[in-house]
Amino acid sequence: MDTPIYLDNNATTLIDPRVLEAMKESYTFPANPSSMHAYGKKAKLLLTRAREQIGAYFKVSPENLFFTSGGTMGLNLLLRGLLPESGSILTTNIEHSCIHENILDLQRKGQAKVDMLSLGKRGAPTLDLIKENLRNDTKLMVFSAVYSETGAMISLEEIAAFAKEQNIPLIIDGVALLGKRDFTIPDGVTGMAFSSHKVHGPKGTGLIYLETPALLSRKVFGGGQESGIHPGTENLEGILGFAKAIDLLGEILPEAEDRMRTLRDYFEISLKKEIPDIEINGEGPRICNTSNIAFMNIDAESLLFSLDMNSIYASLGSACASLALEPSRALINMGYTQKRALTSIRFSLSRDTKKEEIDIAISSITQLVSAQKTLLSSV
Amino acid sequence: MDTPIYLDNNATTLIDPRVLEAMKESYTFPANPSSMHAYGKKAKLLLTRAREQIGAYFKVSPENLFFTSGGTMGLNLLLRGLLPESGSILTTNIEHSCIHENILDLQRKGQAKVDMLSLGKRGAPTLDLIKENLRNDTKLMVFSAVYSETGAMISLEEIAAFAKEQNIPLIIDGVALLGKRDFTIPDGVTGMAFSSHKVHGPKGTGLIYLETPALLSRKVFGGGQESGIHPGTENLEGILGFAKAIDLLGEILPEAEDRMRTLRDYFEISLKKEIPDIEINGEGPRICNTSNIAFMNIDAESLLFSLDMNSIYASLGSACASLALEPSRALINMGYTQKRALTSIRFSLSRDTKKEEIDIAISSITQLVSAQKTLLSSV
Repeated sequence: MDTPIYLDNNATTLIDPRVLEAMKESYTFPANPSSMHAYGKKAKLLLTRAREQIGAYFKVSPENLFFTSGGTMGLNLLLRGLLPESGSILTTNIEHSCIHENILDLQRKGQAKVDMLSLGKRGAPTLDLIKENLRNDTKLMVFSAVYSETGAMISLEEIAAFAKEQNIPLIIDGVALLGKRDFTIPDGVTGMAFSSHKVHGPKGTGLIYLETPALLSRKVFGGGQESGIHPGTENLEGILGFAKAIDLLGEILPEAEDRMRTLRDYFEISLKKEIPDIEINGEGPRICNTSNIAFMNIDAESLLFSLDMNSIYASLGSACASLALEPSRALINMGYTQKRALTSIRFSLSRDTKKEEIDIAISSITQLVSAQKTLLSSV
Repeated sequence: MDTPIYLDNNATTLIDPRVLEAMKESYTFPANPSSMHAYGKKAKLLLTRAREQIGAYFKVSPENLFFTSGGTMGLNLLLRGLLPESGSILTTNIEHSCIHENILDLQRKGQAKVDMLSLGKRGAPTLDLIKENLRNDTKLMVFSAVYSETGAMISLEEIAAFAKEQNIPLIIDGVALLGKRDFTIPDGVTGMAFSSHKVHGPKGTGLIYLETPALLSRKVFGGGQESGIHPGTENLEGILGFAKAIDLLGEILPEAEDRMRTLRDYFEISLKKEIPDIEINGEGPRICNTSNIAFMNIDAESLLFSLDMNSIYASLGSACASLALEPSRALINMGYTQKRALTSIRFSLSRDTKKEEIDIAISSITQLVSAQKTLLSSV
């Protein structure tokens, strides 16, 4: 079998060997940071250092960072913990399912009034759209820094500044931004969540930033770890791995961003040359690694299956929803037709993606699309 | 420095090298079980196998098992997800903080009526005590199979049979039982939670058993992983490690149980010979590895500190609470005096604890206690 070409890095990434190496320290002794003895103190020190390392990357105080078990758990804790007692929530209809399903549950139970923005083909809310839809009683805003299905980006600094000016709490899903672009968490962001396994770190580890930790109402109870925000024995090995994964970003960005963007653009331009009727989903600024392509008149599921047989791995949309085999909620809610959504495939590169891999992908896709078109026209 | 003697295995355990080996499979490719391509299918297969392996050990269907991020998260999901709409909860005042703090929160908010049993020096609820305290409106019972501070055990089968007969949902904290004794999850247990890092598995992974998964109300929202009970990309490496850790139990138990019990009893008898005024906390049946000892007239914190200096690691009680340096809630609520609680230390063995280590511990403790008594009498 050929070495597979993995273009589904928005679903998960291969763990970096340096991350695995960093995790080992936690395996050499029974490490519970809450224990009082020397092993406990050593574990606590490693935990503290990891938090400081990450704080240094984000240029925030380690006291504002809390480890969680992943992006989904982090965003659940943020949304439920910062839920206003009254007033409206302003969000979009293409947030990740961990926000979207939460919002639907709140609506179902009559626990929140929600304005769910339709974003159109831009694929990310602009400041103008937010301003237009703000109510007097808007008490919370929830957006993604990057929408992972298309890579569409918001202007994080601009929106955060507006939130600060209006004094409205702002939750940002930062999962698809981290690792793709250097950034600092701007003033005005109340809470922001990240996931380790999307940046070549281990699974089972996430992080939330909180501007004012005391404002978060606790939803999980236990021994008080992570200031009671995510109690339970800390996943020290995961945390050491995540800290290393973030530390590596300081070395590889912004060079890796340029490289991913160049390769992604080359992929799109080359493919467009070969298959002129393809269209990119998501207009406006996009993150460097994501390409969501409508193949028009081609069944995406069949194409994906053929690609899979040729050891090229991509996806229909977010992995969380991909088993459903329904058209992507994000694309439909962006106003694309169901037909177009069903012809669309997401390709997402990593910093390790090679030009040779992209070249093979271009030629395979071209060949398979052409074969499928021939097949369709002969029917 | 001497090789430390680790007698705090109820706080966490050293990961087994075979567990680390089993986890590696998840690191060799970008593994998201929700992805549709070959990597995703492989990840899904590994996940399914792990669940089956664990189901085989517990003799339950894999469909009743759900992975979580740990014991604390599992018990939070069980308690909040099985909370009765009305009626009373019957529990004890020495449950782990993840149950206890939850119960206090429910009481504070007037969301539940609670009967919190005082257990006395037995340290675990008997069926008789439960029967005496049952109300007509008792709609949920929450107990631990083993109380981790003293090792006191309930009669799980008997209480489960009673719960079934009375048709009252029963949540069991199984964290301190797993790995110490072979058992199957009896009929009548509605939900039971386990933690990986207490059985030589990785941190950041836990498991809940649910008799009827559909009865659990979902509290966390996301992509529907783990049947929506604990959504978010599965911590596959952690799960593979946990499955291996549980699989190993099938090989080592019940032999390891006998070995731990023999060594623990030898420890207690030898220590009692050397220091006649010590007393064991917790009367009645105890799990094989735990020894909670009142040193009478000795300050436990100082003794623990001296032991630490001599590379012998134990604890004042549960690690989650140990940083508080307050007398153990469990011991106080069992009716021991504050003075006695403040002289008490928990020693917890693992299957890897050696007789030579116990011998060294006995001689060090004897020496240090004697030195502290001399010091106290000279004051």
